[in-house]
Amino acid sequence: MSASVVRSVSFFVVCSLLACLFAQASLAQLVDPAAESLRSWNDCATKRALVDYVQRVCDPKSSEFVPEPERLAVFDNDGTLWPENPVPFQLAYAFDVVGKRAAKDAEFAKHPMVQAVLKKDIPTLLAGDHHEGLLQVIAMTHAGMSVEEFQKSVSDWVSQATHPKYNKRYDQLTYKPMQEVLRYLRTNGFKTYIVSGGGADFMRVWSERVYGIPPEQVIGSSAKTKFELRDGKPVLIKTLDQLFVDDKAGKPVGIHQAIGRRPIVCFGNSDGDMAMLQYTTIGNPRASFGAIVRHTDEAREYLYDSAPKSSGKLVEALADAPKQGWHVIDMKQDWAKVFDE
Amino acid sequence: MSASVVRSVSFFVVCSLLACLFAQASLAQLVDPAAESLRSWNDCATKRALVDYVQRVCDPKSSEFVPEPERLAVFDNDGTLWPENPVPFQLAYAFDVVGKRAAKDAEFAKHPMVQAVLKKDIPTLLAGDHHEGLLQVIAMTHAGMSVEEFQKSVSDWVSQATHPKYNKRYDQLTYKPMQEVLRYLRTNGFKTYIVSGGGADFMRVWSERVYGIPPEQVIGSSAKTKFELRDGKPVLIKTLDQLFVDDKAGKPVGIHQAIGRRPIVCFGNSDGDMAMLQYTTIGNPRASFGAIVRHTDEAREYLYDSAPKSSGKLVEALADAPKQGWHVIDMKQDWAKVFDE
Repeated sequence: MSASVVRSVSFFVVCSLLACLFAQASLAQLVDPAAESLRSWNDCATKRALVDYVQRVCDPKSSEFVPEPERLAVFDNDGTLWPENPVPFQLAYAFDVVGKRAAKDAEFAKHPMVQAVLKKDIPTLLAGDHHEGLLQVIAMTHAGMSVEEFQKSVSDWVSQATHPKYNKRYDQLTYKPMQEVLRYLRTNGFKTYIVSGGGADFMRVWSERVYGIPPEQVIGSSAKTKFELRDGKPVLIKTLDQLFVDDKAGKPVGIHQAIGRRPIVCFGNSDGDMAMLQYTTIGNPRASFGAIVRHTDEAREYLYDSAPKSSGKLVEALADAPKQGWHVIDMKQDWAKVFDE
Repeated sequence: MSASVVRSVSFFVVCSLLACLFAQASLAQLVDPAAESLRSWNDCATKRALVDYVQRVCDPKSSEFVPEPERLAVFDNDGTLWPENPVPFQLAYAFDVVGKRAAKDAEFAKHPMVQAVLKKDIPTLLAGDHHEGLLQVIAMTHAGMSVEEFQKSVSDWVSQATHPKYNKRYDQLTYKPMQEVLRYLRTNGFKTYIVSGGGADFMRVWSERVYGIPPEQVIGSSAKTKFELRDGKPVLIKTLDQLFVDDKAGKPVGIHQAIGRRPIVCFGNSDGDMAMLQYTTIGNPRASFGAIVRHTDEAREYLYDSAPKSSGKLVEALADAPKQGWHVIDMKQDWAKVFDE
């Protein structure tokens, strides 16, 4: 090899190394990764507070530094990561299943809650502290199936059902700014969890594909399955035994059951999320961050807070937000985009 | 810069790059990482089968390749990762707590199960399909406390109580070969879980420090906590509501509840682990691996299988092992070391 060839090759190698080093330095110092990550957010107080918080807990030199295994962030799903109107999307699934079965089964069609579904009588279904009518419908449509049968039913539904307002598949309606928050936190070493009143088995079918959240990080309402051997093969059958409603005071209970540690970041959107906001932020030895998504955007999404029929009532948590330091996200003001277009 | 300096620098850079590439190649091809990792194992059929299995499911070119998020390995704890004699270690904890309380509280001391504890009447405590007497003792010593109080009580006990045979702290008695399996699997992209009949809250106090398994990967027996605000601060109180016994057919149920996906690797040591061995290995679309630790070493550990008083009865699973392809680990023959000395 001639000296000039060696020189050319080595010049190329040295340049490549320098380019690599420079690129790393740029990433760390010159680009603002938060601004890049959270580009569907307008420049608002909540965005600035979140970036400031993440920098503080991720900086090993900060007095508020949190080791990575304790960086746990919990998110409500309905109304926080995707809409919950005109009904929570799992209810839309149950309605479709009930409708199909009622058309074939006259006895089934007589049940008062099946009647409520057929008449789209939402107040009856959502009545009660934990929406007991809704739970009965879910029970009728979910229990007795094997886990695999249920997963297939949900998967088939998600792949074809569309939302009445947007005429898009439900899984295409996640909030873009919240998807950015999920990714931004994960990039900074957080483990992201869904903590929802919805069924764990319902969400786990698509949570990894849609949110990048694997099934083991989905906490939801659930009942015990029953283990059986059928023709020598193991099957788990969905039942209603030990029904657990992961809502209100149930949310911290579900978090403790699944994780065994307190989260440090919590996003919710209704009074149903108040207990987990309290559990995350009040008296936590770690620096914490709580936020509430407020539905203020009638044009792009929905406008509601305390509407009596709403499944996402937000009165107490909103009143307590200033005292507890919970950040309130005004969807209309704070989000440059709501959905991915 | 003279041409010779450039040449020297570039020669150094090129050599460094080659050295790096060579080092990587060595790690991958020349050193046998499994032999290094599993050095407390003798060269036995189970060790060879495990290494062969891990290579197959981790090789992207293999037809049996399993993507990393699905590499889930579940381990029973008592008798599989540490001993369960003369009594399961959580029972030793409960005995100590009961003894201290009985000495101060005459009414408490009259309870038949407290009497059984004081007389060390193990058969009475372990009677019943799920050791109901033991559960009563656990209830009396665990329920009504806050999660933090319970954690402190367990942590204090673990830091000072010692095992009667070994005169060592209980947390120093984990099986060295099994610790190596945990690390070997994690090095190969597996997520390791404990799935134990023991209490989740009991194990989570020390699982991360002792096994490198974080609390959210500990599945155990549990009951619902109760969320309260005390002086405005959130507290979770341990109760006996919705008691769930993570044993026998409860193990696959607990796995589905916590993970929502089938594991592909399972280690157990008794008939209590048979259902989760079945769930892991029978009809699993993924290549799977099941193994049973057999207590054959009277000198270094204990000798038992089907002893009628044993809490780790191993009869049915052992009989089914050849048919199901479950690997049986003979502690005396297969383990060069049992404990870390």
